[in-house]
Amino acid sequence: MTRADGRADDELRPITITRNWLDHPAGSVLIDFGGTRVLCAASASEGVPRWRKGSGLGWVTAEYAMLPASTNTRSDRESVKGRIGGRTHEISRLIGRSLRAVIDYKKLGENTIVIDCDVLQADGGTRTAAITGAYVALADACAHLGVPEALTGSVAAVSVGIIDGVPRLDLPYEEDVRAETDMNVVMTGAGAFVEVQGTAEGQAFDRAELDALLTLAEKGCADLTAKQQAALGS
Amino acid sequence: MTRADGRADDELRPITITRNWLDHPAGSVLIDFGGTRVLCAASASEGVPRWRKGSGLGWVTAEYAMLPASTNTRSDRESVKGRIGGRTHEISRLIGRSLRAVIDYKKLGENTIVIDCDVLQADGGTRTAAITGAYVALADACAHLGVPEALTGSVAAVSVGIIDGVPRLDLPYEEDVRAETDMNVVMTGAGAFVEVQGTAEGQAFDRAELDALLTLAEKGCADLTAKQQAALGS
Amino acid sequence: MTRADGRADDELRPITITRNWLDHPAGSVLIDFGGTRVLCAASASEGVPRWRKGSGLGWVTAEYAMLPASTNTRSDRESVKGRIGGRTHEISRLIGRSLRAVIDYKKLGENTIVIDCDVLQADGGTRTAAITGAYVALADACAHLGVPEALTGSVAAVSVGIIDGVPRLDLPYEEDVRAETDMNVVMTGAGAFVEVQGTAEGQAFDRAELDALLTLAEKGCADLTAKQQAALGS
Amino acid sequence: MTRADGRADDELRPITITRNWLDHPAGSVLIDFGGTRVLCAASASEGVPRWRKGSGLGWVTAEYAMLPASTNTRSDRESVKGRIGGRTHEISRLIGRSLRAVIDYKKLGENTIVIDCDVLQADGGTRTAAITGAYVALADACAHLGVPEALTGSVAAVSVGIIDGVPRLDLPYEEDVRAETDMNVVMTGAGAFVEVQGTAEGQAFDRAELDALLTLAEKGCADLTAKQQAALGS
Amino acid sequence: MTRADGRADDELRPITITRNWLDHPAGSVLIDFGGTRVLCAASASEGVPRWRKGSGLGWVTAEYAMLPASTNTRSDRESVKGRIGGRTHEISRLIGRSLRAVIDYKKLGENTIVIDCDVLQADGGTRTAAITGAYVALADACAHLGVPEALTGSVAAVSVGIIDGVPRLDLPYEEDVRAETDMNVVMTGAGAFVEVQGTAEGQAFDRAELDALLTLAEKGCADLTAKQQAALGS
Amino acid sequence: MTRADGRADDELRPITITRNWLDHPAGSVLIDFGGTRVLCAASASEGVPRWRKGSGLGWVTAEYAMLPASTNTRSDRESVKGRIGGRTHEISRLIGRSLRAVIDYKKLGENTIVIDCDVLQADGGTRTAAITGAYVALADACAHLGVPEALTGSVAAVSVGIIDGVPRLDLPYEEDVRAETDMNVVMTGAGAFVEVQGTAEGQAFDRAELDALLTLAEKGCADLTAKQQAALGS
Repeated sequence: MTRADGRADDELRPITITRNWLDHPAGSVLIDFGGTRVLCAASASEGVPRWRKGSGLGWVTAEYAMLPASTNTRSDRESVKGRIGGRTHEISRLIGRSLRAVIDYKKLGENTIVIDCDVLQADGGTRTAAITGAYVALADACAHLGVPEALTGSVAAVSVGIIDGVPRLDLPYEEDVRAETDMNVVMTGAGAFVEVQGTAEGQAFDRAELDALLTLAEKGCADLTAKQQAALGS
Repeated sequence: MTRADGRADDELRPITITRNWLDHPAGSVLIDFGGTRVLCAASASEGVPRWRKGSGLGWVTAEYAMLPASTNTRSDRESVKGRIGGRTHEISRLIGRSLRAVIDYKKLGENTIVIDCDVLQADGGTRTAAITGAYVALADACAHLGVPEALTGSVAAVSVGIIDGVPRLDLPYEEDVRAETDMNVVMTGAGAFVEVQGTAEGQAFDRAELDALLTLAEKGCADLTAKQQAALGS
Repeated sequence: MTRADGRADDELRPITITRNWLDHPAGSVLIDFGGTRVLCAASASEGVPRWRKGSGLGWVTAEYAMLPASTNTRSDRESVKGRIGGRTHEISRLIGRSLRAVIDYKKLGENTIVIDCDVLQADGGTRTAAITGAYVALADACAHLGVPEALTGSVAAVSVGIIDGVPRLDLPYEEDVRAETDMNVVMTGAGAFVEVQGTAEGQAFDRAELDALLTLAEKGCADLTAKQQAALGS
Repeated sequence: MTRADGRADDELRPITITRNWLDHPAGSVLIDFGGTRVLCAASASEGVPRWRKGSGLGWVTAEYAMLPASTNTRSDRESVKGRIGGRTHEISRLIGRSLRAVIDYKKLGENTIVIDCDVLQADGGTRTAAITGAYVALADACAHLGVPEALTGSVAAVSVGIIDGVPRLDLPYEEDVRAETDMNVVMTGAGAFVEVQGTAEGQAFDRAELDALLTLAEKGCADLTAKQQAALGS
Repeated sequence: MTRADGRADDELRPITITRNWLDHPAGSVLIDFGGTRVLCAASASEGVPRWRKGSGLGWVTAEYAMLPASTNTRSDRESVKGRIGGRTHEISRLIGRSLRAVIDYKKLGENTIVIDCDVLQADGGTRTAAITGAYVALADACAHLGVPEALTGSVAAVSVGIIDGVPRLDLPYEEDVRAETDMNVVMTGAGAFVEVQGTAEGQAFDRAELDALLTLAEKGCADLTAKQQAALGS
Repeated sequence: MTRADGRADDELRPITITRNWLDHPAGSVLIDFGGTRVLCAASASEGVPRWRKGSGLGWVTAEYAMLPASTNTRSDRESVKGRIGGRTHEISRLIGRSLRAVIDYKKLGENTIVIDCDVLQADGGTRTAAITGAYVALADACAHLGVPEALTGSVAAVSVGIIDGVPRLDLPYEEDVRAETDMNVVMTGAGAFVEVQGTAEGQAFDRAELDALLTLAEKGCADLTAKQQAALGS
């Protein structure tokens, strides 16, 4: 009962974080969670949306999207369909909330940071890779704006799930589709929870399973936090 | 430190469930969670979407929407804006997943049930009221189709949150906006989890807080299950 | 040759008008014309659209929509289709014009009232029920704004049609589809015409038929005016 | 108290009807009502929409639009705005209903005729000019299809209104904006009514005024019928 | 190997240019290139788009569209489809660029001219007829604004192509679909190039063929320039 | 008068072509033209669009898009705006036409290849880099489908322009905005022209300038063809 890629049940896939992959944005990161590859770009600009003007507070938002050829079978382009799907909306909102959890708007000042997370290749866990990479890009953007203190902590995310009755960490696509229960957990570097989203794909899960998954996620997020710190050189 | 409406911290608001509020759909329920009022209509039709034809399996889906005047200040109509917002999409998908968790597609046969949850008045917890009412409408629709056995259990949902450090059940709007942490929990009548969605609104929450909220939600969902059963006369 | 519901040819269906059905809007009315049930909400706000600013004049507008499950067979949600249909547009415009006919913009001052008419259940005559109920909600909204004198009169509407050669008042769906000629008439409480919209569904109608329908509509609008006044307690 | 263009109150503007103004469609007419100029093209094709297939019945539909430069001040293009306005929808539906009133679907057979009415220049009465011209294009299209007998009669339309208390026929823009009451009437060549749409622009109108307007419209439609017949050479 | 309409290979189709075909816009031209008929309307207004305010410079833009019945087989209306197609966009941009090539923004002052080119009938070369006619409408609009000096020259356009190995000028639809290579060339009255757009429809073309086509286009644009000057009476 | 990056006037920027950059599509190429970086993915699938079924012929199409953070200043996401801009449409169509020029549909058989060209970083010449990279991805996709013979040749593209009176090859953004004339040229590996698109940005250009630009483009495309062949290992 081992995993197809030989990993232990509580082990992450190989993670690589490449900073400054683009020339233009204030921060940019290419992040790989195994076969999942996401380009995270943090664009900084002076000023805030109209509803926030004059408040002295900054703003951080995020947009998530998948390239058509990122998936096994090509998917239609949302710009061509003329509307963004429910899943895209949902993940964009999740990423934005997660990043805002570690931002001090006052210290950011009236600046806006937009984080674009574009999935270049998808193999499960695209939203957790996006959040984990986006944090690094955000850190670079804050430094670029001269306000590194606007960050109150770090944030990382991982997926966990129960496959054939066994809780596992960081699911690739092949495990994701077979999971009975699927959970995405976003945590701060300090070990507190920002988001917990668990879904029974097959049958409903009990409290003990829920507890096991949360413990596994705590382990995974701690590992990812270490990798983020290493990438940021601290 | 009591609640504005005098409730205990682990007490639901007054819940009323009125079946058959409409003449046309196979099942229809007007549900009140205190000041929140949602009209849940389950329309049944023969046949399934194209991608499911010939499988012998049925389909259940849901759409959530808020009437413009349901909120404190009138909100714009999404049909007029020409696109559905991220929040609407997200909640529609949540309701659909929650209901599908208690459906046996094979026993449903090649029939489709669409559940419309229209919020007539909003005072916090509209998605949990929608799920709780939608289950009752779904049960009536299954009975109407002659396949009550397509239901493998019941499902109910409740919101919980931490306000001023105290975990509370079933938040009205006024508490919802003040909550540090907000969680929506969907459970089966048998006490298993279908969805757990927790969000740190202010600061990240620790494992002990998460555990307290889950325990409170278990209590609330059990109370709602009893009210559903009473409404269904069983 | 009697009507399926036993009514006389010049008799309205049972009409019920429930004021203050919602907590938030300035005026709200649930109105039933037999099996047709429309929720009319009048939201008042300070200020007017940009093109009217500084004029000292107010503005009144209306939006009509049908819930998906309001009809015999579920209809698609216009927000999901991403565009409003021709019929919806047409009826929204009709309701707005009808209400504006009894408004003194100067006395209303630079305030805006938006009337949402959402059909919860449809059994013919939804636009006439909407106008009749919307007037009552509008009256409550004017009172709420402290400018009851902004109303220069009342307005009500009824459908009339020729079925099997006989002119009939207030058609339910079953008669509506069989009508050779269908007319919607909007009148003031003082007995003057605001809108007359007659359509030959089957064959064109002559002047005598037109005259008979107008006389029947005058009777129906007078009856509805009495019910509006009773509901408003005057 | 004469009209700006010197016409009698019951006199039409100069009407010109030019058949076969385009090479491609089965029927095409350029019609002028004074300064109002509408291009009506009737495109015929074999087959009917899906919902009508196998019925042996044909279909007729219409689309109305205004060119951006047709109005006094340029108006935005609806294709650029990405949605059709309420007025456009409403008039397209009116033209379609008016033409279908004189069509025998059975004799038309499973053919579809689409009538495009594009306003090249607008000076009041664009919808009535469109209907009047569209009938002639429709007649040519029926002849082109070899089923002239699919027409059960002719149809024409005219506007009437009360200006400074005086009922007038065929209002140009300058009179239209000043009218207290505005009515569009569609009639068959045999003198029966197909559509009657009266609106109180300023104050509500009484039964006597309504009667005077209907009488004036009967006169105008009869005059237009004569011009249509002359154009069709019969 | 002669052309179906008897023309020489380097001969234009009959060209007619009718100025002031509409009453409202500052300039309007109905132009025929054989069976292709385009209505070009130049609407002038004071002021410029927001991004250009206070610059002292004017603005010129263009919109191209085809009426549904202009083509052999009726095409769907883009306003009904809710989006503008790629070809429409592309041609609108081409026309705008071509006209701006002969405008001195400073001499135009802070005025905006919008040129609408609506194809009433299509028989090949609609974009070149549009540009050629639009220039004349633009000249009239500049004169109407009192700034004829804002024009720095004239502009005209023609299509050329290779059919059965022979370069030909001003292709009608029937030749256009058979062309191996198709080129649209926009030139000033002074004989310089504004746009060159050549496309290999069948097989790629060599430098000699390209040269021959350019020479033919120079001849055609010179002929069109003469016709424009004649129409403008200079 | 040297170029900012020290290149000769007829020299390309550093070109790198990385094949198989993605796991899923049949062909995928990351191509750099200096600072311009485009991801070209060729997805192959059995079957063709409906209008081509049963013809025995294949189909090739392309979609171009820019990531929001690819430009100097972040641009809005077209999927969020809900519509594709004119420039995007135009370039997608250009890429598709260019690739189809070297495809034998019959040898491709009833298969479809969709080429997605997503600009990850923009520094001028994104459309020419896209075409040049897309050809390599297309070649890999044809090989993957087992029909390398469906390619009748190769295709590459380059931009040329006149800056301060001097013709230059392969313009970066900084030169592109200063160019008086800008031309994109698409050529086959055999040296024939597929597309020629020249635009006078400032003042119109004469025949001699046009000739000089074409000669420069011939040189650039030949150099790019060599690099494509090297990448494909032939």
